[in-house]
Amino acid sequence: EEEFSFADHSHRRFNPLTGSWVLCSPHRAKRPWLGQVEEASSEQRPTYDPTCFLCPGNKRATGAQNDCYTSTYVFPNDYAAVHAEQPDCSTESLALVAGENASSDLFRVESTRGQCSVVCFSPRHDATLPELSLGEISQIIRTWQSVYGNLSADPSIAYIQLFENKGAAMGCSNPHPHGQVWALSAVPSEPAKEIESLKAYHQAHASTNPNACLLCAYVRAEEENAAAGEQSSRIVLQNESFMALVPFWATWPFETMIVAKRHVTSIASLSEPRIADLAEITQGLTCRYDNLFQCSFPYSMGLHQAPTAAHPDAAYCHFHMHFYPPLLRSATVRKFLVGFEMMAEPQRDLTAEQAASRLRAQSPIHYKKPSL
Amino acid sequence: EEEFSFADHSHRRFNPLTGSWVLCSPHRAKRPWLGQVEEASSEQRPTYDPTCFLCPGNKRATGAQNDCYTSTYVFPNDYAAVHAEQPDCSTESLALVAGENASSDLFRVESTRGQCSVVCFSPRHDATLPELSLGEISQIIRTWQSVYGNLSADPSIAYIQLFENKGAAMGCSNPHPHGQVWALSAVPSEPAKEIESLKAYHQAHASTNPNACLLCAYVRAEEENAAAGEQSSRIVLQNESFMALVPFWATWPFETMIVAKRHVTSIASLSEPRIADLAEITQGLTCRYDNLFQCSFPYSMGLHQAPTAAHPDAAYCHFHMHFYPPLLRSATVRKFLVGFEMMAEPQRDLTAEQAASRLRAQSPIHYKKPSL
Ligand SMILES: O=P(O)(O)O[C@H]1O[C@H](CO)[C@@H](O)[C@H](O)[C@H]1O
Ligand SMILES: O=P(O)(O)O[C@H]1O[C@H](CO)[C@@H](O)[C@H](O)[C@H]1O
Repeated sequence: EEEFSFADHSHRRFNPLTGSWVLCSPHRAKRPWLGQVEEASSEQRPTYDPTCFLCPGNKRATGAQNDCYTSTYVFPNDYAAVHAEQPDCSTESLALVAGENASSDLFRVESTRGQCSVVCFSPRHDATLPELSLGEISQIIRTWQSVYGNLSADPSIAYIQLFENKGAAMGCSNPHPHGQVWALSAVPSEPAKEIESLKAYHQAHASTNPNACLLCAYVRAEEENAAAGEQSSRIVLQNESFMALVPFWATWPFETMIVAKRHVTSIASLSEPRIADLAEITQGLTCRYDNLFQCSFPYSMGLHQAPTAAHPDAAYCHFHMHFYPPLLRSATVRKFLVGFEMMAEPQRDLTAEQAASRLRAQSPIHYKKPSL
Repeated sequence: EEEFSFADHSHRRFNPLTGSWVLCSPHRAKRPWLGQVEEASSEQRPTYDPTCFLCPGNKRATGAQNDCYTSTYVFPNDYAAVHAEQPDCSTESLALVAGENASSDLFRVESTRGQCSVVCFSPRHDATLPELSLGEISQIIRTWQSVYGNLSADPSIAYIQLFENKGAAMGCSNPHPHGQVWALSAVPSEPAKEIESLKAYHQAHASTNPNACLLCAYVRAEEENAAAGEQSSRIVLQNESFMALVPFWATWPFETMIVAKRHVTSIASLSEPRIADLAEITQGLTCRYDNLFQCSFPYSMGLHQAPTAAHPDAAYCHFHMHFYPPLLRSATVRKFLVGFEMMAEPQRDLTAEQAASRLRAQSPIHYKKPSL
């Protein structure tokens, strides 16, 4: 009688952080691909581009001028999705688009305030995160800490999202290395779901463990699984403070998460040695990403942590970073999460274990680094 | 004092079908675009392509041969995401990837069975849905009815998803006009959420209205809003049986929904006059899509209805179709739902009202149709 095999048989896995499922069809990686191919981003960029809106000293589209910065550089997003000041949305305003139904539960609206900034990672136009030095990456983390600290102190801000879109395939409109900050007057849907799950997990387990945390437990479990053998390991790399792994419930082909090994609610509380560890694991992971298909690996990356330092549920939060990269088979063939995925459920074509094993096998030395 | 304006000020809108929010930043449509541009699909295709896996009489990648079909044509997907037969996932199987943690609530897995088919819309390689005749589109709907009917009668099937990915930008790997059917042994996450919402709405309103339905109420409300004036209308077009509209909570720039105006749980029960109405509104909507940017408009489209005819919650379901098209500004500039959207919350750059008004303004005659 045939045995169930994770590498051959379709199954669904549950994501306990968001409370949703992912369909996994590992045999499907074998189908031929005749669809859209991405441009592999292997272009050589100059260290300084006079037409770039993000390079030091340059004029931006709106006329503002960048400082002649030499490290990281934070400035307000000229096309911010939210603004600090705007009128409230009254029932009269809502009536303009929902008429007499303005008070119905089918037309719910909230006015949203906040602010958006850009965080340049380096003055060098040709750099990317994995190619920066550990010192430079540590400086980015310190910049995130200060952005997060300042916005946390602003009572009009309820949530701070730090993220990076890397590569044209992920909607990045400028290759100069940079991330963004969108800070809002309300906690958005995705982190709200995660906080719900973290809180519910704590409450369900607090009687036996007063410090119960879903992600603390998950890190412990993945350590045990890895110790039990290569086949059940989803860890890509780790150091004293952080673990980089392909979560059991990953959606994107090479999706990973960097998780703090001990309970830390946000980057705000990371000491210098922890900052160095986070820089190291970020460099190690993104370098393996680039080596996988020998290209500048596109992804969207973001930090999940306490919405602000002052949020009432901050203590339940456990600092982690998600990396969602679209590539599936090569530098030019990506996974599309489209029809079935949009209408029904995310679907993936290789197991989390297979993805982890391929990432683990990559060299920790960046493929573009000249060998001595 | 400044008044709140939906066209100028950031706000969040609530999606009562899925219970999630979308951030709307209408002023943001003004930012310059320097990122990825799509290839506009204006290529001329032959009516028959000897290398196409879907054309009548051709050999497929796996060696099977297509019938010399002259109308619609359904055959099993050669790279199915799920199979009818496979072993169950036992705790022992799970232990192979989750070790001693196999029984923990962090490692939840379900074996998933089912079947996947391809539905060719037409023998003509160069056709697209909006270019087909009303008779041909009616035949597609009848084909969906029979596929849905047959799979509903299979006790191992819990959910049937009919969908179409159109265009390379939406991961479609073959331009021959076709859709897909993925039928599964479990109800996937997205429809499960919708059914929850429809059921909860019914239960909350049943005491005052024994036929209370979220989508019936929404259709009525949008009729009233449209009657109150152009500014508050999200209806693109309608006929006796169906309404095509940009939902108040749309995520994609030109997202629409075709909704049955009366409570119908699935396509199974559509009579011939209803089929003709559905064909007409589908042609009218997709034709306006193509006319908007004078290109073959990419999208993912899917039918939401009773999971199967026999599902215990079937009576709460209300037949509708979602269209999720990625284009934002032109045939080559799309919206990316990436960093902030993946980590925090979907975000859009124009209001649902603006999108509806632009679609309404399009000619009902396809731009490629030779004028007399
Ligand atoms: O089956 P196709 O058309 O080759 O594949 C397409 O649709 C599927 C269902 O939405 C997706 O899983 C694939 O990523 C996409 O490329
Ligand atoms: O702000 P950018 O980099 O121009 O824009 C990019 O990231 C934003 C935040 O994820 C998205 O809303 C945009 O669709 C995307 O193109």
